[in-house]
Amino acid sequence: MNYPSKLIEEAVNEISKLPGIGKKSALRLALHLLKSDQSQTEFLTRALTDLRTKTRYCRQCHNISDAELCQICSSVNRDESLLCVVQDTRDVLAIENTAQYQGHYHILGGVISPIAGIGPTDLHIESLVSRVRQNPEIKEIILALAPTMEGDTTAFYIQKKLADFEVTISTIARGIPIGGDLEYTDEITLGRSIMSRTISHTKGN
Amino acid sequence: MNYPSKLIEEAVNEISKLPGIGKKSALRLALHLLKSDQSQTEFLTRALTDLRTKTRYCRQCHNISDAELCQICSSVNRDESLLCVVQDTRDVLAIENTAQYQGHYHILGGVISPIAGIGPTDLHIESLVSRVRQNPEIKEIILALAPTMEGDTTAFYIQKKLADFEVTISTIARGIPIGGDLEYTDEITLGRSIMSRTISHTKGN
Repeated sequence: MNYPSKLIEEAVNEISKLPGIGKKSALRLALHLLKSDQSQTEFLTRALTDLRTKTRYCRQCHNISDAELCQICSSVNRDESLLCVVQDTRDVLAIENTAQYQGHYHILGGVISPIAGIGPTDLHIESLVSRVRQNPEIKEIILALAPTMEGDTTAFYIQKKLADFEVTISTIARGIPIGGDLEYTDEITLGRSIMSRTISHTKGN
Repeated sequence: MNYPSKLIEEAVNEISKLPGIGKKSALRLALHLLKSDQSQTEFLTRALTDLRTKTRYCRQCHNISDAELCQICSSVNRDESLLCVVQDTRDVLAIENTAQYQGHYHILGGVISPIAGIGPTDLHIESLVSRVRQNPEIKEIILALAPTMEGDTTAFYIQKKLADFEVTISTIARGIPIGGDLEYTDEITLGRSIMSRTISHTKGN
């Protein structure tokens, strides 16, 4: 496309490097900023710069944090026996939103992916192992990773690493989502949901 | 949502002020910037700041421009007798992409909208009138505004303002888009497309 000025071309190029934003959306956003008050651009760029340069990470769970220890790690109301291993911050937010989990978290920062060049040492796996070693109150590790090849590989690797510790290792349930239709569920999910069926009534009980 | 840090909360708030970006997408973008190289955030914020503070507008057509006169206005290869009136820069890009138009443009900067508090004086309508007055080589004004109430009001207002000049005023054709289905076209569009039918063969010719 032949942009009317170099400035808008550069802005479109930079905005469209963000995931899920194409050249047309980028142009729409750039023109929006041009039309709105200059303070909006100032606030936006300052927030992004501050985010990128000043963000800290919790030294225990590696989540984004304002302090050395994040709110969850420093809370006294959480169950210290449960540790949920997730890929990134968004997973923590998603699980927190369910209000069903009161334990702690450990953020890996990604999953093992040979194609993307991410090995176990690029993730916070060693710190998970030493966290389990140093905290005998941890009784169960819940692996809440994506059901992809990379997620399964990572889960398998962690399970091997934690094999010598006296902890229960569990995986979040795979199955048909609430409201999902059997007919339209893929075979692997449906197969797993039959294998991992939950018993609701046993004869004589 | 309970964000893990103030910095990410502020970034999400600012990003989600952009049109078409909700809190979830904003969080995804913020986490993407956090994960990528710091230079990406630097380039992005610099491009946005430069765009907002250094952008110039063509003194003749009001399009975004690098110089005092934009590339189209300063080109000697464009047809000086045609002037296409559009709402904003995106419309210019869309029409330029068709490669069907070789005339000049005039960017209004919006459409008359009493609800949004935009009156005729907020738009580049006066400069359009004086442009037509000063350039007798302009023979036709093409109104290429959106077929909405605001667009129609603006077109009507411009037509009234230009009534005393010896120029042809035309409107881009409304009708069924190429590949469009008669059955699924709304009544108003279908009605207009019958009223404005083009004759392809006349008996005896």
